[in-house]
Amino acid sequence: MKISIIGVGLIGGSIALKLKQKNTVDFIYGIDNNTDNLNEALSLNIISEKADFENGIKNSDLIIIATPVDSAREILPEVLNLISDQQTVMDVGSTKSGIVNSVKDHPKRSRFVAFHPMWGTENHGPKSAIADSFSGKAGVICNREESADDALQLVENIVNDLDMHPIYMNAEDHDIHTAYISHISHITSYALANTVLEKEKEEDTIFQLASSGFSSTVRLAKSHPEMWVPIFKQNKDNVLDVLNEHISQLRKFKSALEKDNFEYLEELIVNANRIREILNQ
Amino acid sequence: MKISIIGVGLIGGSIALKLKQKNTVDFIYGIDNNTDNLNEALSLNIISEKADFENGIKNSDLIIIATPVDSAREILPEVLNLISDQQTVMDVGSTKSGIVNSVKDHPKRSRFVAFHPMWGTENHGPKSAIADSFSGKAGVICNREESADDALQLVENIVNDLDMHPIYMNAEDHDIHTAYISHISHITSYALANTVLEKEKEEDTIFQLASSGFSSTVRLAKSHPEMWVPIFKQNKDNVLDVLNEHISQLRKFKSALEKDNFEYLEELIVNANRIREILNQ
Repeated sequence: MKISIIGVGLIGGSIALKLKQKNTVDFIYGIDNNTDNLNEALSLNIISEKADFENGIKNSDLIIIATPVDSAREILPEVLNLISDQQTVMDVGSTKSGIVNSVKDHPKRSRFVAFHPMWGTENHGPKSAIADSFSGKAGVICNREESADDALQLVENIVNDLDMHPIYMNAEDHDIHTAYISHISHITSYALANTVLEKEKEEDTIFQLASSGFSSTVRLAKSHPEMWVPIFKQNKDNVLDVLNEHISQLRKFKSALEKDNFEYLEELIVNANRIREILNQ
Repeated sequence: MKISIIGVGLIGGSIALKLKQKNTVDFIYGIDNNTDNLNEALSLNIISEKADFENGIKNSDLIIIATPVDSAREILPEVLNLISDQQTVMDVGSTKSGIVNSVKDHPKRSRFVAFHPMWGTENHGPKSAIADSFSGKAGVICNREESADDALQLVENIVNDLDMHPIYMNAEDHDIHTAYISHISHITSYALANTVLEKEKEEDTIFQLASSGFSSTVRLAKSHPEMWVPIFKQNKDNVLDVLNEHISQLRKFKSALEKDNFEYLEELIVNANRIREILNQ
């Protein structure tokens, strides 16, 4: 199978590596506005050939859009305009309502499968790509009833070859759940980094004292704005909803401390500890 | 050398394992109000013998207090009352001003060295102890000028045997820095867990969708209240100060989103990204 990957960064690159390892694909066209990324992906053997948009798409059985979510939304209709009924398109974006709505009435809608692999790191670019990234994680497929059976089957095979298990969801639910489980973590982590950078002027002290706990909580704050601003923008209402709740939860800690109400503080912590059982299911 | 460890949990147990591995100590008395912990520590070969408070202390060259910080503050003067000028006492608590002040005028003050190893996990109890936990981390020694030279030297040797590097600081500065770098991370993580538990009623969805990013940010929310309530209590003013700043940083994200001010959102993220360089020094 020949495929095109549009956007050969962390996710696109990781998918490429895995599908080559599994012999799912034998040729990968790399398409990217960023020439450095493209050259790097070629020299790392992530893609087989650099391609321009039209040529890559024309020669591919499957086109994977792995750009930031705002570009993906613009690119998808253009890709659908170019393909036949024998070709399939999938994306890998972290928000799904916007992209699904953008092609709702497109005559080639059924050739598209909306996909979101529940994996990522704070790193970016093809050099950060890892073949085994996805193993054991969930791969969410949204609005599957809007995709043609053969397109859906092809993407399910890809999910399987990535060693992921598929979960099915509608795009609206996906965007609500990911606001809770992924997007708010990033805002928390960015805000925590800004708090420490604002209050702790001795950068050397941060470095020296930073324990594994701090590094773990602040890890996502390294994530790039090119990817995350569009996600927050597209999932604005859900993110705001969860952010308001988060601020109100922090206020409970503040109030417990201010009032020396340590029984309440303990209650808040005991409740938070419940996450242990849920994550260790 | 014979030592007593008062509180054979995660930290006390990990120190015991490492010091035995290094042959720094040949006998460890375990002292703990929690009989289960004590029996577990004995069966895991973490301690050599269960001891009562007075007997353990009497027969030890070094006494390590590794209880939650509120108990440590009560226990320390009692330990100092029992020891000679040939014995040394150290603690491992995450707050330092309280404990240092509690023995400021004690006639045996100079036998005590205030210590805080910058390592911990969300787990607890002797079964979670790991010998190599401390390797490469900072070990903070506070108010060293208040300790006798030989007591300080002994603790510095212990720090060395734990494969840590010593950092010297006064207790007030320590409590300010750890509020920034450790304590606020825990509150953020607890509040994030409570946010998700409050908003996401489908626990199965949390489990299925939780990516490594979420798990990493929420990891500290598994930490036990027995340890953390006393820390927040003893470091209340500093923690409140940082918590207020954190809430105000989150409000900036909220405001940027509400006003569709995506340039500002990007600025906030670019600023947070600076943590990458600091942590990767």
